[in-house]
Parts: sequence; structure tokens; C-alpha cells
Amino acid sequence: MRWTRLLDLTGHPTFARITGEAAQPIQGTPFGPPGTWHDHGDPIALDAVSWLPPVQPSKVIALWKNFHALALKQQQTIPEEPLYALRAPSSLAAHRQPVVKPAHYDGAVFYEGELALVVGKTMRAVGPAEVRAHLLGCTIANDVTAMELINRDPSFAQWSRSKSFDTFGVIGPWIDTDFDWTGASVRTRVNGRERQHYPLADMIFEPLTLLSRLSHDMTLEPGDLVLCGTSVGALPMRPGSELEVEIDGLGVLANRYG
Amino acid sequence: MRWTRLLDLTGHPTFARITGEAAQPIQGTPFGPPGTWHDHGDPIALDAVSWLPPVQPSKVIALWKNFHALALKQQQTIPEEPLYALRAPSSLAAHRQPVVKPAHYDGAVFYEGELALVVGKTMRAVGPAEVRAHLLGCTIANDVTAMELINRDPSFAQWSRSKSFDTFGVIGPWIDTDFDWTGASVRTRVNGRERQHYPLADMIFEPLTLLSRLSHDMTLEPGDLVLCGTSVGALPMRPGSELEVEIDGLGVLANRYG
Repeated sequence: MRWTRLLDLTGHPTFARITGEAAQPIQGTPFGPPGTWHDHGDPIALDAVSWLPPVQPSKVIALWKNFHALALKQQQTIPEEPLYALRAPSSLAAHRQPVVKPAHYDGAVFYEGELALVVGKTMRAVGPAEVRAHLLGCTIANDVTAMELINRDPSFAQWSRSKSFDTFGVIGPWIDTDFDWTGASVRTRVNGRERQHYPLADMIFEPLTLLSRLSHDMTLEPGDLVLCGTSVGALPMRPGSELEVEIDGLGVLANRYG
Repeated sequence: MRWTRLLDLTGHPTFARITGEAAQPIQGTPFGPPGTWHDHGDPIALDAVSWLPPVQPSKVIALWKNFHALALKQQQTIPEEPLYALRAPSSLAAHRQPVVKPAHYDGAVFYEGELALVVGKTMRAVGPAEVRAHLLGCTIANDVTAMELINRDPSFAQWSRSKSFDTFGVIGPWIDTDFDWTGASVRTRVNGRERQHYPLADMIFEPLTLLSRLSHDMTLEPGDLVLCGTSVGALPMRPGSELEVEIDGLGVLANRYG
């Protein structure tokens, strides 16, 4: 099953399910048990959809240094625990929505293609074996970061701020409930040129372990997003760039920067 | 006007207004224009209230190094811009609710008494002169922090995580819409002994400037919380400690640790 959110034909936000080349609006949410939602209204052709971020999370957790290849390239140690910052939910942007930096920031802005996990049920200190039943599914993220902000003040690393500008948290186009990440790769293209291409199997804390660990830190709620971190190849973007993050078997998330 | 949230006599969460020695449940929210809420049900004596955090924010912004006295004591520079991390909304705890650290963390836990601001209306790039009309009011915070976590991994400062454990974000008991912070002080007591006593006039980015600056980084939404940072005197707590944060003219926020 693939879920998304969109503006219906009357301009109202609604959840929808993807059915081949169309999106079928539903009444209800993907978070309830089967039978608590039903199709509602006419299907919309995918190329005519007004996309919204597929969830409205209460929090967005962004992992840092979660791939062996990136840690190696940056001559960093392998972390002993998941390292993360929170990103403001107000930063989320949808498939096809432009990414725009605020007027006051003139430093470099980096793309970061990533796998994102969507929590389906409330999780408090859940063991790894029970995580799968709490996961709604996976989506694609471009974890856009105002990189020069992070260490601009030498006394305090501004991780949350560097990721919280409006439109910097790109996710979508949909959540796939059956996606198998174990053999898949992430590819990021800028103006059609491949800049990132890395296997998800290289993750340091793989998704089920990661969600279990995070749920021991804090209660995870339905719709909460975990961005699994990026690997090698993230670079600054020029205004006007066309960005695409593709994950095999999951889809393509496309946005313009600036 | 003073607003809070509580469990009504049937156990349902509701907003309420404080009327002398009682809390009067309302139907509606404090965020709508006058006339969109009305009293609903019987008043509850304050000493019988089941308190909830007075808002359910979409994000919680926690300032670091926002007082001259603390920067001076720590031999730090005065920051040129607000420095902050995001705290998970799931970390919030109410007046009288115990603060409990997770089983996996055995390091020091610090209290931090603070002024907190509650956004009343959506704010995007709002100038300082227009901020007051977007502010609902002020409340009290104990910005509890797992201090030894922050620099446990030398490659990444874990600010968000150190503040996001469940129950570490204590706020309340109520939001005061008319509170004047300019002449007020914050006092934090541990087991009745005063440990912090500092003037809010010592703030580096005072509330209206701070909210304006933050609203240029990201959209602030009704209910969003900004914790203004603490000053000198924050220390680790022993389990079983009784914590009180008092702000003149605003109230006393009381919790037990462990």
C-alpha cells in the first residue's frame, strides 16, 4: 500500500492512496486499523496531484553519521549510539514544492538524499523484534541543510536551526508500507547528474534497531518521521537546480531549489 | 487572563481559565478571537486540579546562552544571534508531574529554571514591533537536561537528545497573557533551598526581539513554545528532590525529580 496527502479537487488537504497512475482520496487516516478509512471522491491522475508532505509529524528526527562510508571518508569514528538532531515540523515541504532559503542566510545549502521512516503506532521503549509492527512504512527525504550555519558560532553547533528553515525538510511523494530497504540504494541527481549513489545496507543503525533505540529515548507517535541520515556525495546547490532523490522500488522525490 | 489545560471531572483534557482559587474549564481554545470560547462545566479548586502542560506545541525551541551573567561566568562570548536546539514536544510534563530519567541514562540531570513564551498567532518574518500582537503570553519552564549526554560523543553535540527524554520539558502551571517580564526575576529552589535567582532583564535576546528573529528562521505556530534559556545556578539533581521554579507575578511550577 502507498499513502500520501494532497489537496483534493476542492482544495482541502486529505490522505489518499496511490492506485497505479492515480491517487484516490480517502476519508480517515492510514494510522487506524483496516475498516476505519474508505475511498472518498474521485481519483486524481498523478501528474495533476497537488502534493502535500505525506504526514504531519509531531517531531522529525534527523540522524547524523549513520553510514559507514561517510564516517570513513570524513575520517570519523563509528558512533556507539544514534546521533541526531530535531528538525522543526514547519520545515517540511512536499514533492514538487520549491526549496527556498531565507533572505538572511547567504551561506551554502546542501542536498542530502535519505531514506525516511514513518511511525505508525505509539512507541515507548519497544524492543527491535516488535518495531516492524509499529512502523507504518518508508518514504524519501531530501534533508536540506544550511551547512555553514552549523559551526558559525564556535561555542554551539546549530544543528536544529540549520535544518529548520521553512521548506528545507522535503519528504514524499508517498509512504510505502511494504518497502524492503535491505537491498535498495539511494541516488541523488542535481540537474540530471548523479551526485549520490549509496546502498542502504551500509547503514550503521539500520531502521528497526534505530527506531527501537529512539523509542527508549522518547515516545514516538503516529506520523513521527525519522530521517536515516545521508552518505557520501552531499554538496552545496546552486539556485535554480533541479533535485531528484530516487530510492529503488520506492519512487522519486523531485524539487527545485530557489 | 490566565489559561491552562487540565483533565476535567470526567477525565478529558480541556483548556481552562484560572479564576482566583479555581480553574474554570472552557469549550474552545485560547487561540481564537474573543467569543469563540465559553465556560463549560463546573469550576475545579486549584488544589484538586489534574494539571496538563498548558499547550500542545508543534515545536519547542530551547535557547542556549541567552543571559549575560551566565556567558560571563562561563567565560563565553556574547552570541551574535539566538543559539537554540529543538526539544521534542513528547518531552513535555505538567505542574506536579514527576520528572523521570530513562533507565539507560545514568549521568547527571540538571534543572534549569526559565521563562517560556507561548506563540498565539502564526508568525512568519514578523518585525519586533508586531511581535506583541502574536504572543499569547508567558509561562514557567524547568528545562531539564541530561547534561553528560551533550558531549559524550566528541564528534556531535547531542543538544536535542539531552532535552527530549519524556518528562524533561516541564511547563506551567498556566499561561499569563498580561505578564510583564521586564522587572521580574526567576528563582529556582531544590528541596526549599534557593539555587537560582536571576533577573529577566539580563537576557541577551529579550522576548520580542527573540520571537522576531526566530520567526525569520521558521514559521512559528499557535501554541509553539520558546524557552528563553537559563542563567547562573543550574546544577545536577538528586533523585527525590523537590523542584520549584518561581517567577515574580507569574507563579510557581513545582515537580518532584525521580
